[in-house]
Amino acid sequence: MKKVIGMGEIMIQMNPVEKGALKYQTLFERHVAGSEANIIIQMQKLGIQTSFITSVGEDQFGEVVISTLRSEGTDTSGVKVDPEHPTGVYFVQRSYPIPKKTKVFYYRKGSAASFLSQEDIDESIFEDVDLFLVSGITPALSEKCRNAALKALEICERKRIKVAFDTNIRVNLLQNRQKALDTLLPFIQRAQILFTGIGDLYFLFESDLASSIENIKKIAERAELLVIKKGEEGAMCLDLNSGKSFEHSSYPVEVIDELGAGDAFDGAFLAAYLENYSVKECLKFACAAGAITVSLKGDIEPLPSWRDLELFIEIFDKKEEKLLR
Amino acid sequence: MKKVIGMGEIMIQMNPVEKGALKYQTLFERHVAGSEANIIIQMQKLGIQTSFITSVGEDQFGEVVISTLRSEGTDTSGVKVDPEHPTGVYFVQRSYPIPKKTKVFYYRKGSAASFLSQEDIDESIFEDVDLFLVSGITPALSEKCRNAALKALEICERKRIKVAFDTNIRVNLLQNRQKALDTLLPFIQRAQILFTGIGDLYFLFESDLASSIENIKKIAERAELLVIKKGEEGAMCLDLNSGKSFEHSSYPVEVIDELGAGDAFDGAFLAAYLENYSVKECLKFACAAGAITVSLKGDIEPLPSWRDLELFIEIFDKKEEKLLR
Amino acid sequence: MKKVIGMGEIMIQMNPVEKGALKYQTLFERHVAGSEANIIIQMQKLGIQTSFITSVGEDQFGEVVISTLRSEGTDTSGVKVDPEHPTGVYFVQRSYPIPKKTKVFYYRKGSAASFLSQEDIDESIFEDVDLFLVSGITPALSEKCRNAALKALEICERKRIKVAFDTNIRVNLLQNRQKALDTLLPFIQRAQILFTGIGDLYFLFESDLASSIENIKKIAERAELLVIKKGEEGAMCLDLNSGKSFEHSSYPVEVIDELGAGDAFDGAFLAAYLENYSVKECLKFACAAGAITVSLKGDIEPLPSWRDLELFIEIFDKKEEKLLR
Amino acid sequence: MKKVIGMGEIMIQMNPVEKGALKYQTLFERHVAGSEANIIIQMQKLGIQTSFITSVGEDQFGEVVISTLRSEGTDTSGVKVDPEHPTGVYFVQRSYPIPKKTKVFYYRKGSAASFLSQEDIDESIFEDVDLFLVSGITPALSEKCRNAALKALEICERKRIKVAFDTNIRVNLLQNRQKALDTLLPFIQRAQILFTGIGDLYFLFESDLASSIENIKKIAERAELLVIKKGEEGAMCLDLNSGKSFEHSSYPVEVIDELGAGDAFDGAFLAAYLENYSVKECLKFACAAGAITVSLKGDIEPLPSWRDLELFIEIFDKKEEKLLR
Amino acid sequence: MKKVIGMGEIMIQMNPVEKGALKYQTLFERHVAGSEANIIIQMQKLGIQTSFITSVGEDQFGEVVISTLRSEGTDTSGVKVDPEHPTGVYFVQRSYPIPKKTKVFYYRKGSAASFLSQEDIDESIFEDVDLFLVSGITPALSEKCRNAALKALEICERKRIKVAFDTNIRVNLLQNRQKALDTLLPFIQRAQILFTGIGDLYFLFESDLASSIENIKKIAERAELLVIKKGEEGAMCLDLNSGKSFEHSSYPVEVIDELGAGDAFDGAFLAAYLENYSVKECLKFACAAGAITVSLKGDIEPLPSWRDLELFIEIFDKKEEKLLR
Amino acid sequence: MKKVIGMGEIMIQMNPVEKGALKYQTLFERHVAGSEANIIIQMQKLGIQTSFITSVGEDQFGEVVISTLRSEGTDTSGVKVDPEHPTGVYFVQRSYPIPKKTKVFYYRKGSAASFLSQEDIDESIFEDVDLFLVSGITPALSEKCRNAALKALEICERKRIKVAFDTNIRVNLLQNRQKALDTLLPFIQRAQILFTGIGDLYFLFESDLASSIENIKKIAERAELLVIKKGEEGAMCLDLNSGKSFEHSSYPVEVIDELGAGDAFDGAFLAAYLENYSVKECLKFACAAGAITVSLKGDIEPLPSWRDLELFIEIFDKKEEKLLR
Repeated sequence: MKKVIGMGEIMIQMNPVEKGALKYQTLFERHVAGSEANIIIQMQKLGIQTSFITSVGEDQFGEVVISTLRSEGTDTSGVKVDPEHPTGVYFVQRSYPIPKKTKVFYYRKGSAASFLSQEDIDESIFEDVDLFLVSGITPALSEKCRNAALKALEICERKRIKVAFDTNIRVNLLQNRQKALDTLLPFIQRAQILFTGIGDLYFLFESDLASSIENIKKIAERAELLVIKKGEEGAMCLDLNSGKSFEHSSYPVEVIDELGAGDAFDGAFLAAYLENYSVKECLKFACAAGAITVSLKGDIEPLPSWRDLELFIEIFDKKEEKLLR
Repeated sequence: MKKVIGMGEIMIQMNPVEKGALKYQTLFERHVAGSEANIIIQMQKLGIQTSFITSVGEDQFGEVVISTLRSEGTDTSGVKVDPEHPTGVYFVQRSYPIPKKTKVFYYRKGSAASFLSQEDIDESIFEDVDLFLVSGITPALSEKCRNAALKALEICERKRIKVAFDTNIRVNLLQNRQKALDTLLPFIQRAQILFTGIGDLYFLFESDLASSIENIKKIAERAELLVIKKGEEGAMCLDLNSGKSFEHSSYPVEVIDELGAGDAFDGAFLAAYLENYSVKECLKFACAAGAITVSLKGDIEPLPSWRDLELFIEIFDKKEEKLLR
Repeated sequence: MKKVIGMGEIMIQMNPVEKGALKYQTLFERHVAGSEANIIIQMQKLGIQTSFITSVGEDQFGEVVISTLRSEGTDTSGVKVDPEHPTGVYFVQRSYPIPKKTKVFYYRKGSAASFLSQEDIDESIFEDVDLFLVSGITPALSEKCRNAALKALEICERKRIKVAFDTNIRVNLLQNRQKALDTLLPFIQRAQILFTGIGDLYFLFESDLASSIENIKKIAERAELLVIKKGEEGAMCLDLNSGKSFEHSSYPVEVIDELGAGDAFDGAFLAAYLENYSVKECLKFACAAGAITVSLKGDIEPLPSWRDLELFIEIFDKKEEKLLR
Repeated sequence: MKKVIGMGEIMIQMNPVEKGALKYQTLFERHVAGSEANIIIQMQKLGIQTSFITSVGEDQFGEVVISTLRSEGTDTSGVKVDPEHPTGVYFVQRSYPIPKKTKVFYYRKGSAASFLSQEDIDESIFEDVDLFLVSGITPALSEKCRNAALKALEICERKRIKVAFDTNIRVNLLQNRQKALDTLLPFIQRAQILFTGIGDLYFLFESDLASSIENIKKIAERAELLVIKKGEEGAMCLDLNSGKSFEHSSYPVEVIDELGAGDAFDGAFLAAYLENYSVKECLKFACAAGAITVSLKGDIEPLPSWRDLELFIEIFDKKEEKLLR
Repeated sequence: MKKVIGMGEIMIQMNPVEKGALKYQTLFERHVAGSEANIIIQMQKLGIQTSFITSVGEDQFGEVVISTLRSEGTDTSGVKVDPEHPTGVYFVQRSYPIPKKTKVFYYRKGSAASFLSQEDIDESIFEDVDLFLVSGITPALSEKCRNAALKALEICERKRIKVAFDTNIRVNLLQNRQKALDTLLPFIQRAQILFTGIGDLYFLFESDLASSIENIKKIAERAELLVIKKGEEGAMCLDLNSGKSFEHSSYPVEVIDELGAGDAFDGAFLAAYLENYSVKECLKFACAAGAITVSLKGDIEPLPSWRDLELFIEIFDKKEEKLLR
Repeated sequence: MKKVIGMGEIMIQMNPVEKGALKYQTLFERHVAGSEANIIIQMQKLGIQTSFITSVGEDQFGEVVISTLRSEGTDTSGVKVDPEHPTGVYFVQRSYPIPKKTKVFYYRKGSAASFLSQEDIDESIFEDVDLFLVSGITPALSEKCRNAALKALEICERKRIKVAFDTNIRVNLLQNRQKALDTLLPFIQRAQILFTGIGDLYFLFESDLASSIENIKKIAERAELLVIKKGEEGAMCLDLNSGKSFEHSSYPVEVIDELGAGDAFDGAFLAAYLENYSVKECLKFACAAGAITVSLKGDIEPLPSWRDLELFIEIFDKKEEKLLR
């Protein structure tokens, strides 16, 4: 069984039952979410043995985060419980003022995860690991977090663990192009598998897709695969060893909740990659996982198993009427 | 007033408030549903005097079933209350992993209805009845149920009551083609009005639509009307007496809950048929009833009255702007 | 800051949580709504100083109405509290039997607002007002209400306050063409800014759009702008001074709740007009406000601010991928 | 099987999910309730064959009322459907400002039931009836209703049907003592079984319990049983034939919703009476039914069956620990 | 009409729908609360003209706070909108692990209100004010807040405005006795009307009630009334001018939500005081307001009007049965 | 760290949101529960390392059971996933017809757990275990289950693992005294720590408490501690080695949901016992855990940690007012 470690902040998400301006919302569902954790849980659901590094407050919400990881089967021995800082929280505003787009309001300043530091990275849990996964959110959270992530990279270097990185730019953390480039540079340089999206590329390079790809290829010194998510346009993957390029269109599903779809994509891509599927197959599973996730509320709940993915692809690829009941 | 009797299992349906994997659902609505009962209630709402034969447990859920039939005006003197076996229950998983498609998880093994037997069919309630309705689910439930349904056919024979039958194949009850053919044969042979769908035809005959139709026509010895539901493609009806064929396209509504749409279709078709509408009109009302049902959650709640059907058709067929308030 | 007064009935809206036939609904949300009040609150959210004339019962629901206006910042010194008559209530049936269309069931007969009379119009609150807004619902409520509205027109005449009027025909109040024309005539004649819709025009003139426009132009003696809402076709505005005509297509959003969209349109148009935007800009903001409102449940809650409108228009008009988080 | 007819208004009850001032309530459950209908349904649940006389609007809420009666098994052939007047509605405010006490806000003026008239009473449904039940609410609704109820009394006289009457005073309908006495007199005079409560007695006679009883006994010329509900003090019954008096204390349960408890009491008393239980037994069942009803929300839902009543009494009367599961 | 100004933090309260450990809660209601704001709104509901000084974030939750104050009629011209800091949020855990007791989890560090400073206090809104109200929470929030509150005291001194102060100790802000005494000293010294509770007194003086009262009397140099809330034991008030002492027992209601009861008490006491009721009457109204509030969920929603208070007191003080409907 | 293994069925519990007759319930919460699992999770929350033996269906509900155990930290390597039989389900009816008492309706016949057999007991997970826990439900489920439990006893014998047993009689599984005695005999004989309740004792021995204790002591050959739960009377424990007897009264809390309280009691008693607390202390913690659980809905959610238990006991044992916020 392949083994993966992820790292990042996991927060309590307060998601209104109704769509519309947050101001008028009076009933909220509590979810748990974090981009890297979503990716890791997607991998766990696809049979990978996963472990997660984070820090939570010594409070009820910290227990929620740990329980959630544990309930999905992800190992939590790398989770720090911080008695001084609380677990981060954020509020979601869905479909307002832009239908089907989501705004977020963070209460993550001073959160336990933003105080995660180099000292909290326990090298021993990296034993026998095949892949390490982090995204651009973690180094953007705080200098401490960035150093912690760099330490993890350094351990991976020593232990010859592959690194997967998603640029995952959050404009409220990385306000402008220069700050984003400065913060993310060592991660882009180091990743063997590099995920990004057309919005991120435009933010980083302010030019058209082709030029942006050339730009990022220059930085991504050790990348083997460069995966670009293009939303409704589907996704593409450049195999930088062979120079070949692969495309997959998106599956035509109704968008219910865009949050977490990119994470599902990454997780399914990586799990398929670790299971030695072809790049083309990896893209197909990734697009299917993204489509399933985008068609349902929640980040973790829609993440599919292999059986779910295969049924989804069968139904969408074959067109004939199949009895499901 | 025309009089119709239906027969089949009615179950308690536990339907999650949210779409997605059943595993994560924590809040459920209780509904009542059963394919034949849905058809019968649709007919009752369209002015037919209806009665239903089933068996329920002597428990709270059995009372729910009886109350529901009674509240719609369907006569329940043919309902057996079984002190030994419980009322069946099933759980629904909506839109996962296939958006807008529904999976079901049954707790119907050993249910009261599966113990319904020949002895429970009271011939006296067939007096003055114009039509008897059953579907492929009932004979597939158990040998006992199949015999009970055959006894009803035999009563109809003697009393010259027309029979309507919907193949309504459930793959978890009739696992393969052969079992389906063996189980359903006498019902297909006997029905004057025969409903089926493209999925059922493909399951039964594993060939294209045209060949499947030829195949089923050969079996359906006494059929006058063969009605084929084609989902988003609409529906067709072969008048086997005249040899004429009629088509109606489906109405363009958003699919919210596919469950029960075929039942609404059957019920509206049969009610219109009993009210002596032309086959073309029957198809139109059937497609409209299916469209209304597919656009709302629930099986029984969306079933329309004549006034609802007429307004629906007026709005969709005329295009001009009409003030509704 | 521009100052506007509106007048009309505000009711308690009981809106089922689920769509479908009202008969089966068992859970309702309480909202507050009234066409003219919606328009006024839209204007208040867009920076206009607003005030409202209405009458509510001296009961809990009357307090709800006043609290709601107050919470949005609208002045309530013109609201009468009537100890004799209750606040009006209505029930909503969504998406049945026509998907995405709404039916309403009123309990407004004898409501406090229908007893609003000339004596209740306090001239002093019209001081320094730039615009008075009323719609066809108010004169249709009762003879008393119509006289009260006529008195307001007369005050406007004396004080040289512009009048905006929306024909806003309710067929259950104005059963036929003649009654509608008779009731609304003085308001159509008097308005400087006249709103109507293609359904209203067809109801009033029973002819095609072009002829209907000619017909209403003949009546609308003092109109400067004639604004015609065309639903999914967008909207047009005739500048009757210059003779120019302007069009704006509707924004392509999913329709969730059609109620209140026309009110949002009117309010945004008028606010932009008072802020001296061009007619073309007014139409654009109006269409955007309508689109945002139609894509969410509720009448008041979706009404956008300038910031919301601008973001909406930016996202829909530019097509490039923009990071929102 | 004994047969009973009841008569009265049945309304749609909008009951907030939360307790507290109605002003702040935003979520409501729809229930169906009416004092006499509650009593009749209690009797139906206890094996009596019941029928009900009322009038409802030709609207969705009218259908709700009829469905509800039908679902409980009560015959609805005596229900008029009025195309001109709507079904009555009322809103409930629970536990505010007095904990555990309920206020109601009516929208019943001009309701279909208030237009029920002598002409609507169909003598044929009184065939073979053992008891007729009405309460003080019905004659207080309107002069029409009072005459309709008097006509029913007159039919009972001719057909020698026993009459049960509950004074059931509503202060918002019968504002003062004199109006109450004038309105209710012929009903008090006529009833064989007369129910009242300590609040009603104090309102009617403004004196202490003993004097009030003497007063009402003088009026109640034909009463055989005078049953007085005393809330937490339990209940008493005077057998006016024998002159004996019986008492039963109330069962010690937590009060959740006082609405409908008196109706449950009446219904259980009458059902037991018709089944020839002793007065003492009748009081015991009545107190138990009231206690079960008071301990749950809703008027109809808590009404017990014989099995429920017997289990309740067994648990409360024996004190030993009994395994229920 | 009497005029009062209050000052303090108002936060968004996330209150789980269910009681129990926060960890398991997945559905939350959003409320708005703040001890001083609760007191002020209680006074507004009792006919006092109120105004409030606070600071909120320039965000959706800040708008919620302002809307809420406005909807109750409280003037918001003293509310600062801070573009740099968010509106505070807290989560509530009800009845766990102690039944009927509430724990809170704050996300208020760095909130807009904690940055409220002397510069934000606009002297002009103190014109014609009769009373200023603040509690021990405000000076405990931050040094900035404490200085802002001291500036308000100084304005009151100059303008001869009475000061009401409630010690209102929060142990998570004022960790120990010394810190509490140091922080609150100038407020206790300055208040004419001083509220405290037996828990606060024990925390401040660690001795029995009699000694604690002696201790606080020594500090409270200018106090005219010292009001001590004793929970289920009721309340007492020492008139320090006359030396007389008054007691009132608590009303026997079931405790549903203890939050806000003390605030309702203070607000009703102060409103009655400003309306020149006797100290004994003030205590009675205060105890009634506290009882009503403790018997319902929410802080603001249960706050009673005079009519509510009077009905409550009538029902509880007279014992006879009164018809409420 | 002490290590414990439990064994039993874990089911999906469908719990209506509202109290009352199941027949009228339309909204249900899904919970997970099982008596032995509740006990084990209580122990896990109190710091014991736990593991559980059960069998679930290879279905969504089976995944729910495993996720739940895992989320609490209980090891699931002893859980069998059965592809042939479904996970058991039951429905709960709360407070009807007996207030605060719960009835259950099982769909557990043929459940995966009832097919758990000797072969499914993996001896290896008993390594280093300090205690094995089972209750009377497991042997009552099926002969297979009884044999599986007996095999576990036999492993414990060989490995010198202590056995805790709770008689936990379910009358719908063990219909009468004789069947109960026959089924449970070897477990009562074998347990070192034996839990029972006054209802169970009365069912088994049909005599008074003192005689019943003598009776069970004769059977319980190897018992060291006999713990008797007496509901509102508290609990007692006989130390059969020393002959001493200990009592603890119950804590005075409002009963909200009696389900699971006995399990919390057992779990807290055993955890305290394994942590070497005195019998008296064990009883105190057990009564506190039971009281906390009885005061909240749900079986697992209310189970307290040591910190919760200590705070609860401190508040209830000391009476002084303590500031909790």
